Amino acid sequence: MVDNAARDALRAFVSERDWAQFHTPENLAKSIAIEAGELLECYQWNAQGNEQAIRDELADVLSYCILLADRLGLDAEQLVLDKLEKSRAKYPVEKSRGRSDKYDQL
Amino acid sequence: MVDNAARDALRAFVSERDWAQFHTPENLAKSIAIEAGELLECYQWNAQGNEQAIRDELADVLSYCILLADRLGLDAEQLVLDKLEKSRAKYPVEKSRGRSDKYDQL
Amino acid sequence: MVDNAARDALRAFVSERDWAQFHTPENLAKSIAIEAGELLECYQWNAQGNEQAIRDELADVLSYCILLADRLGLDAEQLVLDKLEKSRAKYPVEKSRGRSDKYDQL
Amino acid sequence: MVDNAARDALRAFVSERDWAQFHTPENLAKSIAIEAGELLECYQWNAQGNEQAIRDELADVLSYCILLADRLGLDAEQLVLDKLEKSRAKYPVEKSRGRSDKYDQL
Repeated sequence: MVDNAARDALRAFVSERDWAQFHTPENLAKSIAIEAGELLECYQWNAQGNEQAIRDELADVLSYCILLADRLGLDAEQLVLDKLEKSRAKYPVEKSRGRSDKYDQL
Repeated sequence: MVDNAARDALRAFVSERDWAQFHTPENLAKSIAIEAGELLECYQWNAQGNEQAIRDELADVLSYCILLADRLGLDAEQLVLDKLEKSRAKYPVEKSRGRSDKYDQL
Repeated sequence: MVDNAARDALRAFVSERDWAQFHTPENLAKSIAIEAGELLECYQWNAQGNEQAIRDELADVLSYCILLADRLGLDAEQLVLDKLEKSRAKYPVEKSRGRSDKYDQL
Repeated sequence: MVDNAARDALRAFVSERDWAQFHTPENLAKSIAIEAGELLECYQWNAQGNEQAIRDELADVLSYCILLADRLGLDAEQLVLDKLEKSRAKYPVEKSRGRSDKYDQL
């Protein structure tokens, strides 16, 4: 996130409400899991969820992820890029193409 | 995400492996919940988790979130900004400052 | 659970290891969410999971649920029966038959 | 669960509403994760949750667990007892007493 608009807006939102006191890494990790459950609820009984609800819940998961990264002094986009490097090694193209198996089952 | 480096790298990673066939919105929502559980595991018994594990698991949650947004034709950063507008209305500064209560309890 | 065999075996398992110190209600609630994610992983990419893995993960979710109920001085089976009474009121047979909608959408 | 009161009551509840059609193992696994997130929400910002909400959410997780076990032809209580046997082998008393480490770190 080169211009970090989302992170900066989240920082301002939290700061104005004096909520950083609640945002321990552990509480943020819980919040990510809670919001991930709400996102999953959009798909509880069928593969097609309500679009506005999906947007809202996905935004909530993303927001807490960005806040946790920021709290830990990390850049969300860089985290993804770093992990992709590992995943490329764990899932070589020739072994994993067209397969959903875990790396230790390839 | 102005330059969308993470999204583009994820797209290439998935495309090279022909994995888009597995990435239905429902499967991605499940994946987000699964990875959120793994992130939470870093904090299962204490408030201080292993830093490298946290980075990896947080990256996994973020990656599936970006993939789901992309699959739905949405921009992850814009989603966060749009949701923040709603949250500002639900949590007015004067009512919510210093309180962790849900908006319907303020 | 009239004879409470599972609860008693779990109590003995925890006591022998001196693990009650880790089993705060909050930590048990996190553990339930973590294990629920592992159970879901059995169904991440398809509807048919590995049977032994499903048994193990479902057992883990159940075990932490029974431990949390016990920690709170509650009986797991009674909890289910009490909640069913509420659910019968929220989902009247004539309104909810054959429909997966939430009670506030019926 | 020797008398299986909860399982039988759940079966009747589902049958009266013709809901078995929605209760694929995959949907039940999603439901467990969703309800586990709602239970965790009781502890999102503090260690002390609302007691009635905890009861209700814990009951929901338990109910879907019992339904999944039943759908797979398994007995919930037996699952817990079988898994405990494995856990005793993975966590020998002398190695794990008073420690919250995972078995591969003991």
